[in-house]
Amino acid sequence: MKIAVLGTGEVGRRIAGKLVELGHQVTLGSRTAQNPAAAEWAAGSGGAHGTFAQAAADAELVVNATGGLVSLAALTAAGEEHLSGKVVIDVANPLDFSGGFPPKVVQTEGLSLAEQIQRAFPQARVVKTLNTMNNAVMVEPGLVPGHHTVFLSGDDEQAKTVVAGLLQEIGWRPDQITDLGALHTARATEQLLPLWLHVYGTQGEVPFNFAIASA
Amino acid sequence: MKIAVLGTGEVGRRIAGKLVELGHQVTLGSRTAQNPAAAEWAAGSGGAHGTFAQAAADAELVVNATGGLVSLAALTAAGEEHLSGKVVIDVANPLDFSGGFPPKVVQTEGLSLAEQIQRAFPQARVVKTLNTMNNAVMVEPGLVPGHHTVFLSGDDEQAKTVVAGLLQEIGWRPDQITDLGALHTARATEQLLPLWLHVYGTQGEVPFNFAIASA
Repeated sequence: MKIAVLGTGEVGRRIAGKLVELGHQVTLGSRTAQNPAAAEWAAGSGGAHGTFAQAAADAELVVNATGGLVSLAALTAAGEEHLSGKVVIDVANPLDFSGGFPPKVVQTEGLSLAEQIQRAFPQARVVKTLNTMNNAVMVEPGLVPGHHTVFLSGDDEQAKTVVAGLLQEIGWRPDQITDLGALHTARATEQLLPLWLHVYGTQGEVPFNFAIASA
Repeated sequence: MKIAVLGTGEVGRRIAGKLVELGHQVTLGSRTAQNPAAAEWAAGSGGAHGTFAQAAADAELVVNATGGLVSLAALTAAGEEHLSGKVVIDVANPLDFSGGFPPKVVQTEGLSLAEQIQRAFPQARVVKTLNTMNNAVMVEPGLVPGHHTVFLSGDDEQAKTVVAGLLQEIGWRPDQITDLGALHTARATEQLLPLWLHVYGTQGEVPFNFAIASA
């Protein structure tokens, strides 16, 4: 599949790299055409790189891995016409560290970032997922043993099926994928990030993830 | 230990009942002296009941199990002088359902309910715990098999040690108790409630709890 991964940070590069490994045709998108991190990634991985708009233009599926506070701007730069009708996987978290630690989860008008993206680009098929874990675990769930969970939120059932399929390609077992329901449930998973940060504070570099234990 | 459990709802009655079973001297506190639910609970359990102030006056430890949106009023009614120097376990969640489902987590000025209680009653030794699960699981962690977690947040280390001891009396294993650190980490556990509600929506009546899976 032709996939655009927007965002050249660790999360974007990690997801893009995994998707290349899986045989997808991946373009890493950034604000500028000559982003050094993107160029280096492309040279090392066999993927391509370009502007947000170049990456999104040809893609069948778009991953938003930009910083949560700049995601709307990045997707606007990608171009509404390049998002229309496409599955947009939002893995970003709108965390504001400007007031120090712990950061605040910024949900303007009470809406998750995912819902704000959906509202700004009504023809995109937004699915929130993978935002509740470290990027290493995102692409290699086996780093964490036993049962643990990746959440899905979205209003478009077909889009969620596509994303669940992609998650399984990455290595997530079907029983690890918890579909929470409509896109508004992304408010809850975005609000999980402060807890993630505190658990990280107690666990350190040991890979971990949230799980639902049940009878 | 002499314990006041403030709040006569399901959570308060359940916790109070468990503490009586464990041999503690428990008074269930409510707004009025003649609360029918409290009287019925006391008659059936061997505990006592009374007003918030009556319950708190003699207690060595106070559990806030009132509704999160009325907790400050309930604790004010209990009386600052009856909270001073005491461990106050806050299990409440400040959820506002007035706008429909999902509810909003009300954290005025970005502060958790636990921090607001601490600010209003600076001599109380506030510990947040048990607020991230169903009340049946709170008092019988064995309902959920395998590894799962109860979080602790508080600024007073000695108070957290007392609370961890009480959790172990209830049946929580030390490895299930995750001390997140300072009281401000209660913002994160209170923000977990929307996710709890969505998982409840997928799991239904099957007892469940959050867990941290790690390598």
